[in-house]
Amino acid sequence: MIVTIYTLFPNLVEPYLQEAILARAIHEGKLTVQIRDLRRFAGNASGRVDDAPYGGGAGMVIRPDVVTAALNEVTQDEPPPNETVLLTPAGERATQRTMEDLATQTHICLVAGRYEGFDARAESRFDRHLSIGDYVLMGGELPALVVLEAVARLLPGVLGDEDSHRHDSFSTGLLDHPQYTRPAVFEGEAVPDVLTSGHHANVAQWRRRTALERTAKVRPDLIDPKKLTPDERAWLTALQHNNNEDDA
Amino acid sequence: MIVTIYTLFPNLVEPYLQEAILARAIHEGKLTVQIRDLRRFAGNASGRVDDAPYGGGAGMVIRPDVVTAALNEVTQDEPPPNETVLLTPAGERATQRTMEDLATQTHICLVAGRYEGFDARAESRFDRHLSIGDYVLMGGELPALVVLEAVARLLPGVLGDEDSHRHDSFSTGLLDHPQYTRPAVFEGEAVPDVLTSGHHANVAQWRRRTALERTAKVRPDLIDPKKLTPDERAWLTALQHNNNEDDA
Repeated sequence: MIVTIYTLFPNLVEPYLQEAILARAIHEGKLTVQIRDLRRFAGNASGRVDDAPYGGGAGMVIRPDVVTAALNEVTQDEPPPNETVLLTPAGERATQRTMEDLATQTHICLVAGRYEGFDARAESRFDRHLSIGDYVLMGGELPALVVLEAVARLLPGVLGDEDSHRHDSFSTGLLDHPQYTRPAVFEGEAVPDVLTSGHHANVAQWRRRTALERTAKVRPDLIDPKKLTPDERAWLTALQHNNNEDDA
Repeated sequence: MIVTIYTLFPNLVEPYLQEAILARAIHEGKLTVQIRDLRRFAGNASGRVDDAPYGGGAGMVIRPDVVTAALNEVTQDEPPPNETVLLTPAGERATQRTMEDLATQTHICLVAGRYEGFDARAESRFDRHLSIGDYVLMGGELPALVVLEAVARLLPGVLGDEDSHRHDSFSTGLLDHPQYTRPAVFEGEAVPDVLTSGHHANVAQWRRRTALERTAKVRPDLIDPKKLTPDERAWLTALQHNNNEDDA
């Protein structure tokens, strides 16, 4: 897979390609990352890419010709991008499903904004407007890296067995279950007995239930009752009933 | 404000402090960023911080003594953190409100996980478990930088007038309105007349309505009708009615 990132600040993006799993995927040819400087399309000697907003107000807006020139350039790549993505807080909010979708493409092009964003006439040229969350950053560089990392780890062969994503939060529809490792007793607190019992079915049930319990507590919006077994629905109802009594 | 970041990979986090606004805030003493290597607490010559999960399964879990040692260390800082934050996909989902809340603290400590995460006995020592979005990354390094950047830009004096955040997406309760800059006509597409009219009240109304329209289309979940004027509610209802007719 190819990921092309256009940014005004390549120096903020490039160092992250040293991340071990990304670096290995790139080295093994499973992932190609092209980081390109948007400022090459400034069209002037000073490298100025922005101008004041029509209608007034604070901040500067990146000119439409700059972004359009970048999109025209990447379209000449072989293969061209299947999907061009503008990173903006005004886009759809990315989820694991979005990352899975992007990971099926052969070439995605991510464009990182800055300042007050891009001219709306350039924004309309993108296939997708994507936000990584409901907060405001200084630019699209971190969001581009977030998408790169989330997508790269889903590519075939990029994660070894030791960092498998089969049980990831979100991909099961629930948050991940709690994890325990050595020591067996830490500052007076022991690992739950079931985890040292060697009884695989009990371990599996405990993990599923603690994942459900954690999700119900922290992110109840993620739970889809249709994806639970009748037993799990009954157990969850009992749990919520008990919690309500504790509160009372 | 002090932001302390514990990570197993300081080399992935440090380069981002060159970001212009962060670097300026640090230079001017408005922000202190301490990046600390979690591996110092490995307690063995090999630097090994993880071990196999109790109960079996893929992946490794970071030992509770490693994280607890880091929290004990940062508590000795002067001032100690007001808030310790574990970055994990199983946390509450961060919003602009979260960032505003964190920005009021004098010292926050962010801990970035890796692998299958931390031992649950260490996780329970944190004041807050925070997720930057519903997707899975390779570790907490990018989330820590996201929180750092989102919080830093809210600190007094960090953003100049030219990069003001008064009209940010989310802080107004709506996505930001579309922006336009020169040229007045780009590839046959003109800037909306109202923006070149010089009529400030009309510009303000156009911006508010286009922000509302964009939010209604991309992120209807963000709209709180109680925060709209009666005129805006009527306008939005008419807009949705027209869109439904277009769909039919």
